[in-house]
Amino acid sequence: MSSKKSDFGVFGLGVMGSSISLNIADKGYELSVYNRADSGEEEVVKNFISANADRPNIKGFTDLKLFIDSMARPRKILIMIKAGPAVDLVLNSLIPMLSEGDIIIDGGNSHYLNTKRRFDLAQSQGIEFIGAGISGGEEGARKGPSIMPGGRKESYAYVSEILEAIAAKDDFGKTCCTYIGPDGSGHFIKMVHNGIEYVEMQLLAELYGLMSKRMTNDEIAAVFESWNKGKLSSYLLEITILILRKKEGSSYLIDMILDKAGNKGTGSWSSKAAFDLGIPNTMMSAAVFARYISSFKEVRENMSKLVRTDSNMEQELNISILEKSYEFARLVNHQQGFKLMQQASESYGWNLDFSEIARIWSNGCIIKSHLMNILYKEFQTKEDLFEMETVNKALVKGESATREILMTALRSRFSLHCFSAAYHYWVDMTTERLPANLIQAQRDFFGAHTYQRIDAPESDFYHTKW
Amino acid sequence: MSSKKSDFGVFGLGVMGSSISLNIADKGYELSVYNRADSGEEEVVKNFISANADRPNIKGFTDLKLFIDSMARPRKILIMIKAGPAVDLVLNSLIPMLSEGDIIIDGGNSHYLNTKRRFDLAQSQGIEFIGAGISGGEEGARKGPSIMPGGRKESYAYVSEILEAIAAKDDFGKTCCTYIGPDGSGHFIKMVHNGIEYVEMQLLAELYGLMSKRMTNDEIAAVFESWNKGKLSSYLLEITILILRKKEGSSYLIDMILDKAGNKGTGSWSSKAAFDLGIPNTMMSAAVFARYISSFKEVRENMSKLVRTDSNMEQELNISILEKSYEFARLVNHQQGFKLMQQASESYGWNLDFSEIARIWSNGCIIKSHLMNILYKEFQTKEDLFEMETVNKALVKGESATREILMTALRSRFSLHCFSAAYHYWVDMTTERLPANLIQAQRDFFGAHTYQRIDAPESDFYHTKW
Repeated sequence: MSSKKSDFGVFGLGVMGSSISLNIADKGYELSVYNRADSGEEEVVKNFISANADRPNIKGFTDLKLFIDSMARPRKILIMIKAGPAVDLVLNSLIPMLSEGDIIIDGGNSHYLNTKRRFDLAQSQGIEFIGAGISGGEEGARKGPSIMPGGRKESYAYVSEILEAIAAKDDFGKTCCTYIGPDGSGHFIKMVHNGIEYVEMQLLAELYGLMSKRMTNDEIAAVFESWNKGKLSSYLLEITILILRKKEGSSYLIDMILDKAGNKGTGSWSSKAAFDLGIPNTMMSAAVFARYISSFKEVRENMSKLVRTDSNMEQELNISILEKSYEFARLVNHQQGFKLMQQASESYGWNLDFSEIARIWSNGCIIKSHLMNILYKEFQTKEDLFEMETVNKALVKGESATREILMTALRSRFSLHCFSAAYHYWVDMTTERLPANLIQAQRDFFGAHTYQRIDAPESDFYHTKW
Repeated sequence: MSSKKSDFGVFGLGVMGSSISLNIADKGYELSVYNRADSGEEEVVKNFISANADRPNIKGFTDLKLFIDSMARPRKILIMIKAGPAVDLVLNSLIPMLSEGDIIIDGGNSHYLNTKRRFDLAQSQGIEFIGAGISGGEEGARKGPSIMPGGRKESYAYVSEILEAIAAKDDFGKTCCTYIGPDGSGHFIKMVHNGIEYVEMQLLAELYGLMSKRMTNDEIAAVFESWNKGKLSSYLLEITILILRKKEGSSYLIDMILDKAGNKGTGSWSSKAAFDLGIPNTMMSAAVFARYISSFKEVRENMSKLVRTDSNMEQELNISILEKSYEFARLVNHQQGFKLMQQASESYGWNLDFSEIARIWSNGCIIKSHLMNILYKEFQTKEDLFEMETVNKALVKGESATREILMTALRSRFSLHCFSAAYHYWVDMTTERLPANLIQAQRDFFGAHTYQRIDAPESDFYHTKW
């Protein structure tokens, strides 16, 4: 064990914490790691240290004071624990033991409003606080995640070297870690990242469900594989191909998996943030709700007896139509997700750089894709996907394809929640006159909420005695 | 002015407060009314009292102490002010001036979690607090609203006589006011009431929008009028007929109203509550988002230039198909809304009586309808619309009609957000096997979140090294 003071500390040696610790150690930094040693976790630190005995630059602690004393000042401590009240408990015990200017980084999926609150609390006690979204799962944490740190730029300067060293690299060799913005902004964009992820997963599930009415798992995988060679390529498409081909003996594992989807809350947080910010993120809501619906398995089983169950598809599927509508739906998903961040940036004064966000999402994270590289370039001069000519061209082209697969799905009694949400959103966003005039009339009728007129300035509000 | 102590007090003489005050005075109670007399509101009380000089049972106050002293104990004070921080300010000044056992009723659209918080606060200071949802708009408040009081049953007993006297009457002559349940439950169900209302309004807007591609306002109104004579009848349908026929000179007022829908937040609260409770309220989200989308008028105008604008309908509309799908979508809307309340009742231990809720919504409120009377009876023995044979029959029958109008809408490039959400939800809820197995496989692949199997107990969770 080296007697040098450590460069960095990791608090919490769960799957993500230990993976990121090894990643940091790989880069040559002196590292202190801590885990509590109470019930059920007595051996965590000991086991981690003995499994990594060949790494003299890692020191293990179960005593918080020794852990803190082992680090050079200003101390830099990455907390890797389950988001929620546990984070507050840890902060309550950590902060009084730290010195002014020490830096705490919360690397979990904390809610951005909690991060804002904790940022203010730490700041009031002279401690720097960074809320860092980290994406990439276990493998990403180990080999290079995408990192989204939010907080004071001055405090980020102290930790940028290490965080940027352990992050993934983009296509140009630059690190997939960049300063995002003030207080909760890092965790906000990680939340939106996860919302986009929910939709990308649901789109693939809908394609798989529709295609499996006429195609085998291998045939579907072959189609996905051909798509993954071009502009539709993404990490989620890639793993879906592997999943569809995975066998247990002679049968496909996917066929044996129960169709009840779980969730850990970030999708619903994203959806709720959209409501708070007034942004119609129709696809995220649809994706989260599709998971909720799937969880009512028993109801579905009972209710299915009420309806005709023969839902085989008569029609042959046109793969090129599917491909165009998949591109269409993914573009709408990314438009909605980035629009949500743009509104947050405006409402909270975060001044987010969307080109940089797309760039650090081009590798390391779960939604990495070819599209992110395109968005990285486009966002250098544009503020919204709807301002990008190449995006609009694909959307205009994809509209009729999407209409066609929605028709096909209707005929075969299959729900395309997210494709449908994408289509309806696009159609309304490209429609000059919507029937919302009736809603305004109704609101004025029963609640005297007033309305505006097409033949008067929008600043004028009218009320009618109906 | 009578020198007798008042039976009741109303705090706040806005549109709703003054209407409900007159309603109370009509019933012969001695009433004290209060409004602040500061900037802009100097004359509110004076004007109200002089306009109602023929009612000696109303006393007006601008001094809070005199207002409080004018009431018999335990005092009963209905606060009718804008929901939000103002309610806390009023409570902060009121509570210290009251005596133990006095009762405050918040009659605004407060968020149920705020009501819970205020209930606890008041309770801790010996004051009773009732959060009462009140629906019916200005006219309802004046002539008989639907009232949804939540709080302690013991404190409700003190105010039940007056609240039940001023509420609307159902078809059997019973009052449309009933004790709902503990703390925030009254405001919760009022919030869901508004969520259901958003959807009912959006369904009519979608029908109107689709139909107006081939029909005049008068023709649409005639169809709606025929529907309003039967089982589809409702207050919102009724006012929509009047709106469609309203003329300004020789032109229709509806044609001149700007298609940007506003909202006051309760629809988004309902949607967010659905996410918190894990209930797929797909239609409420769709209705709120449709309003949000409408507000992007400038974007829509610009984007509309990208697409073909000729969206006339070639196909004749089949009115009976529209009618069946309208019934279908309304039933799904009510299933989702009541399901949300059921989940809240379970999660919060409120023990809500859904038959009573449907009954007090059968008159006085904005979503009053023939359907509420049916639900009142059905909920006496059933817990969910999906358990009601008559409902399921109509849903099964309405499915193909809904599919048909979705096809029609697709062909004419028109978005049926809420009809579509209803259909997809119903289809999934009656489908035994959904493609959510792929989502579980993906989650296990990148995050080791584990999955369940169809050939093993649901209590067993599996992880695969993909």
